[in-house]
Amino acid sequence: MPSVGVPVPRKDAYDKLLGVSKYIDDYNFDNQVYVYTVRSNCAYGKLLGVDKTEAEKMPGVLGVVTYDQIPGKNTIPLVKLDEPYLAEGYVHFHGEPVALVVAETYEQAEEAAKLVKLNIEPLKPSLTIEDSLKPDAPKIFGEDNICSYFNVEHGNAEEAFKNDTRITHVFEKEYRTPYQEHAYLETNGCIAVPGIEDSITVYGSMQCPHYVQDAVAMAAGVDKNKVRIIQTTTGGGFGGKEDFPSVVCGQATIVAKIFKRPAKLVYKRDEDIMASSKRHPGKVLMKVGTDDNGKLISATIKYYMDAGGYTTLTPLVLLRGAVHAFGPYKCENVHIQAYGVCTNKVPCGAYRGFGSPQTVFATETMMDEISEALNINPLEFRKRNGFRIGDTTATGQVIEESCGLQETLDKASKKCNWEYKWQKPSEKKGNIRKGIGMASVFYGVGLGAGGKAIDRSASSIMLLQDGSVRVAVGNVEMGQGARTVLAQIAADALGAPYDLVNVIETDTAIIPDSGPTVASRTTFMSGNSIMLAAKEMKPRLLEAAGLLLGVSADKVELIDGQAWIKGKTDTQKVPFTEIVKKLYAERMQPISYGWFKAPYTDRNPETGQGQAYYVYSYCTNIAEVEVDMETGTYNVTKITSAHDMGRAINPQQVEGQIEGGTMQGFGYGTTEEITHSPDGRMLNNSFSTYILPTTIDAPEVDPIIIEHRYSEGPYGAKGFGEVPLMCVAPAVANAIYNATGVRIRDLPCKPEKILGLDK
Amino acid sequence: MPSVGVPVPRKDAYDKLLGVSKYIDDYNFDNQVYVYTVRSNCAYGKLLGVDKTEAEKMPGVLGVVTYDQIPGKNTIPLVKLDEPYLAEGYVHFHGEPVALVVAETYEQAEEAAKLVKLNIEPLKPSLTIEDSLKPDAPKIFGEDNICSYFNVEHGNAEEAFKNDTRITHVFEKEYRTPYQEHAYLETNGCIAVPGIEDSITVYGSMQCPHYVQDAVAMAAGVDKNKVRIIQTTTGGGFGGKEDFPSVVCGQATIVAKIFKRPAKLVYKRDEDIMASSKRHPGKVLMKVGTDDNGKLISATIKYYMDAGGYTTLTPLVLLRGAVHAFGPYKCENVHIQAYGVCTNKVPCGAYRGFGSPQTVFATETMMDEISEALNINPLEFRKRNGFRIGDTTATGQVIEESCGLQETLDKASKKCNWEYKWQKPSEKKGNIRKGIGMASVFYGVGLGAGGKAIDRSASSIMLLQDGSVRVAVGNVEMGQGARTVLAQIAADALGAPYDLVNVIETDTAIIPDSGPTVASRTTFMSGNSIMLAAKEMKPRLLEAAGLLLGVSADKVELIDGQAWIKGKTDTQKVPFTEIVKKLYAERMQPISYGWFKAPYTDRNPETGQGQAYYVYSYCTNIAEVEVDMETGTYNVTKITSAHDMGRAINPQQVEGQIEGGTMQGFGYGTTEEITHSPDGRMLNNSFSTYILPTTIDAPEVDPIIIEHRYSEGPYGAKGFGEVPLMCVAPAVANAIYNATGVRIRDLPCKPEKILGLDK
Repeated sequence: MPSVGVPVPRKDAYDKLLGVSKYIDDYNFDNQVYVYTVRSNCAYGKLLGVDKTEAEKMPGVLGVVTYDQIPGKNTIPLVKLDEPYLAEGYVHFHGEPVALVVAETYEQAEEAAKLVKLNIEPLKPSLTIEDSLKPDAPKIFGEDNICSYFNVEHGNAEEAFKNDTRITHVFEKEYRTPYQEHAYLETNGCIAVPGIEDSITVYGSMQCPHYVQDAVAMAAGVDKNKVRIIQTTTGGGFGGKEDFPSVVCGQATIVAKIFKRPAKLVYKRDEDIMASSKRHPGKVLMKVGTDDNGKLISATIKYYMDAGGYTTLTPLVLLRGAVHAFGPYKCENVHIQAYGVCTNKVPCGAYRGFGSPQTVFATETMMDEISEALNINPLEFRKRNGFRIGDTTATGQVIEESCGLQETLDKASKKCNWEYKWQKPSEKKGNIRKGIGMASVFYGVGLGAGGKAIDRSASSIMLLQDGSVRVAVGNVEMGQGARTVLAQIAADALGAPYDLVNVIETDTAIIPDSGPTVASRTTFMSGNSIMLAAKEMKPRLLEAAGLLLGVSADKVELIDGQAWIKGKTDTQKVPFTEIVKKLYAERMQPISYGWFKAPYTDRNPETGQGQAYYVYSYCTNIAEVEVDMETGTYNVTKITSAHDMGRAINPQQVEGQIEGGTMQGFGYGTTEEITHSPDGRMLNNSFSTYILPTTIDAPEVDPIIIEHRYSEGPYGAKGFGEVPLMCVAPAVANAIYNATGVRIRDLPCKPEKILGLDK
Repeated sequence: MPSVGVPVPRKDAYDKLLGVSKYIDDYNFDNQVYVYTVRSNCAYGKLLGVDKTEAEKMPGVLGVVTYDQIPGKNTIPLVKLDEPYLAEGYVHFHGEPVALVVAETYEQAEEAAKLVKLNIEPLKPSLTIEDSLKPDAPKIFGEDNICSYFNVEHGNAEEAFKNDTRITHVFEKEYRTPYQEHAYLETNGCIAVPGIEDSITVYGSMQCPHYVQDAVAMAAGVDKNKVRIIQTTTGGGFGGKEDFPSVVCGQATIVAKIFKRPAKLVYKRDEDIMASSKRHPGKVLMKVGTDDNGKLISATIKYYMDAGGYTTLTPLVLLRGAVHAFGPYKCENVHIQAYGVCTNKVPCGAYRGFGSPQTVFATETMMDEISEALNINPLEFRKRNGFRIGDTTATGQVIEESCGLQETLDKASKKCNWEYKWQKPSEKKGNIRKGIGMASVFYGVGLGAGGKAIDRSASSIMLLQDGSVRVAVGNVEMGQGARTVLAQIAADALGAPYDLVNVIETDTAIIPDSGPTVASRTTFMSGNSIMLAAKEMKPRLLEAAGLLLGVSADKVELIDGQAWIKGKTDTQKVPFTEIVKKLYAERMQPISYGWFKAPYTDRNPETGQGQAYYVYSYCTNIAEVEVDMETGTYNVTKITSAHDMGRAINPQQVEGQIEGGTMQGFGYGTTEEITHSPDGRMLNNSFSTYILPTTIDAPEVDPIIIEHRYSEGPYGAKGFGEVPLMCVAPAVANAIYNATGVRIRDLPCKPEKILGLDK
């Protein structure tokens, strides 16, 4: 095909290079006010009152807004409706928004915020999963602080451990993973602009305009048809702009409604790290039973997530983590129990990988430990147990097509010369020791059975008189390249030239709720809805072309901006622009629409059994390290990353995603963690204290594209965006073990742990 | 039906009453520049150069833009492409835009404009139709200054005058009509905002966003898919915002592109009157032959329009004027020749009535003159000759349905007691003399055969999760009440409550080109496309309701926001909001689209014969006056106005249109005219010198609604918006004649003409 599969240039490349792109802080509206958030200075406490007097006397200050002034409901419409826009009754974490200072300038608002006196009666907080599960724990959520629980039961693991005689080896370990900050380039921010007839338009940096539309309608107390959300050029999301924009956009809306002026609320970095949702810290207790050949016979997994002060998206994140908890491996008996536990810390939410990187670290380290103990090469071990078509997942789902796991194992190991480089740790000598380690992952595409009700997507294709094409979708561009990939799909599906196709920025007034831009679903969902819209439009183009060529539509071939009579490539060709002019002259409908519903999924709520996702993507990462045994410092020299994403619509962008995701996973595995003071205050909410890897630290990344096309995907594509991050950390930890013989079971892999100094 | 036919409150009433509505000058964009236009000080001349030096030295001035800097084409994309955004080579009228001064403030731009030196070599202008048709006239358009010509030939009029022995009376007269200024409350204006990737969004006060989209793409030199036009709350159009916004929006775009900043161009009143298009002055030579009973046997009409310095929409305006030139009267032989003649004055364009009020004045005065001469009561005369179903128009079109003319004659005359009040002028005595006069009109709905290619319309209906409904259309609200009427149509077509339906402001990114908001076509065209969109959506609503009621969709009745099992009104009812929730839960498509093509029309280009319009609306006006014979001053005491618009979707708004249109026609007939200096400078471009009638002058208006439903119209509606203006002036002139015996054949009817002092 002319454009799909080709590394065409990104639509937004030049603007981003030249600094033309407008991010939310580049926007300013006439007569706008600025909003600064007053936050709880206490991790848990009873909110007795807010003294606004001094603050409201400050120059430029228009007022200080508290929960009692909210025109709509003080409830952020996420899963469990437990989180308020502004604290009411109790505060659940240090940094929780309590009041909004509104002023003529940002500086005036920030200054006055210091004078708002919060009267909070402090209560003893719970800062750990363990504390929150104690009987005397503060009641942060319900009676037991468990805001979500899932059970996935395949076969009978407990029974097998008792009586299955094939089990000759049992492994039982605990693994822990830390917070991870999204560290997108652009912080959260928005501007809420009041319009005519109670309408309100919110511009902002976000992944899910239709979530935000709910939040704004809720905060404003107006019908949804009065609410319009326009996503501005967004500088990264990684899940951090799935749930959190509902908070800031709702808060800005409250101010805009009260003061009848545009309200700008843009976070500085320290606020953003302190208050926006993070990746859940995880604790995984895993027990696995095998035979002598390493065949996996039984496994039990207890997975605990630290949800923080409110539920946000924890149930959805937890479910995905649970479903994927035992990785891409066959096993007759698997019992997974997953718990979301509330603590008095910042609420956790969506983050690339969505609850899986925690369990992936556990499983992939465990697989390395087992293969080591059974003296089986980790590659061989994974090839024996890894999914092939026909195998069954922990939810009892049979993998029916597009399963590239084995090929990722083969290609990655061949490419990096695994067989040659891998030796046992015991054979390593000297101060600088090289090591190599691998990890694999499978990942369900889309929202799956858990999000089935909203797993649909719309798009429209509009032809303009000059032959240019405007495509609108309900999912967003956030830097991942969606507008480019979707333009490629639209161009080829229509037979239009790629250059004439423009996928415009997302606007809820144009396209109805298409679900969130998450779960690696955009290429697949929006792509498929574009395919349907093109399917409606193409016959009109062929008819118009036929009229110009003097033949019936069925005799016309239309590819890459040119139409000709089938089988007569040497004769007259009509350009796309002329075809569209003819379509207009004939008054044919120049707009078409696609509405795509995700393929079948289902789930038994008790056993967690069922078709969890309609298809899975696969990856194998191989990490190579050099460790200094004296200092415990190490370099990750190379990561070979092999991926089956069904089809690489734009190979260059796929490689970019692999490189970017690998770096994010690398940081997760090596340097990133968040620490709190004993009273629950976040200690490192800045990039000088929250350590992100830099280009100097970056390993060489060797991306490998493997295409096991999916019959239901646009041009065979599955999902992909999240996968590159997911099994980097365990690959690095396994490589470190391979180099040093030191097993790290809690991320990040810090030198002191290698030296055994962290106990 | 629950909402159609009911005077529900206007959607925009409260905002407009409370001053919340945002008109274009209420908008300001961050970092915007202001644009002021430098205009030709000469009616006709050769543009030798523009000296910007002094102006560009002025504080705040960013630059002075001339034609040579235009990024796209210097051509306004209207009918004939003869008008530039900025003068190039020659200037064609006094006030023509030559340069654009760009500054940080409006005042700075206005001030600096005075320092721009235009080097124009003056040439002798032509200021009248007569002069422009002389052989030695300046070549303003082509070789003969005739920018448009139409021939409508039914039967053989010339032949009939020679040889048809039934013709016993021949009447031959010349009639003249003046300029008319639209005098909308809000002047022309826009703001062009540059966006990402060469895109540009223009906000403005306009009737035809899709015309403007063409103009902006042309001026900017970008693909149309990069251009977005958002119509802001518009304070009246009356045709004045059909063609002219293409000029200002194109010019603002040029500035925005060059300076890469939002560019605001809003006219003050004096500029707006001087430069924006007007109603064409008209000259009509009419010859009519009848028998003794007043049967119309033959007529020839020569219709000349003063187009001004450029063509703009003259051909379209002229065609409509020509087609309607002999009014709603049967006549075997009619020959109409219509000429658009260019002169060195402000270009004329669209104005409510679109070329017809000129010929309507001629025809209706002529009918009055004939009935007077033949001693037939004007009512009786019109009833004899006026259209009934089965009659044939001057284009040979047989009126097949929905013809309410006779009923407008009957109801209007009965209501005002015509038979009692009408006596011959000769019977009037005394200084204060009362008189009564009538006039009738028929008016083709929509763009007709002349605009067939663009006579289509799109709309979309989006259901939101909370049960509210968002409707988007391609035509606009400009004060006429479209958003209200279309919401009524949408509500009833869906079975939704009117209050839950919001018709949003028009945005070219949402709805494709639906043609202009002109020709009284919006209720019919957008209404019909909404009916089609609802027809696509309704079955989903019924299916969802059926699922809730436990019956199949065909068993469900859904009216006015409630659904129940057919025939069981007493049992369980499901509210609309619940139905929509269910529709979402089932992942049914929550958006639907309508694409409506106007019914059949055709036209023979040589003879002008054919189905000129698919349907016509009808009106009869009866005016009552009191004339002071000493001073010639007069009061119009009452106007009875009977209209057949097919169906009054909102009777209150229909009456409002009748009242407003009557006032506009009243001004056209009595006080409004534009005068020029001998060198072609407009002398009265202000409301202190261009005399509009005030409420003190306003006659009592008695509106009468007559509904001859049209089978193809939404709920039977035809078009209506323009009609109330069209035959007020001749009714007043005829009433003045009836009171005084003085026949006025050139508008406006001024006291000096009554006193015979204007010769």
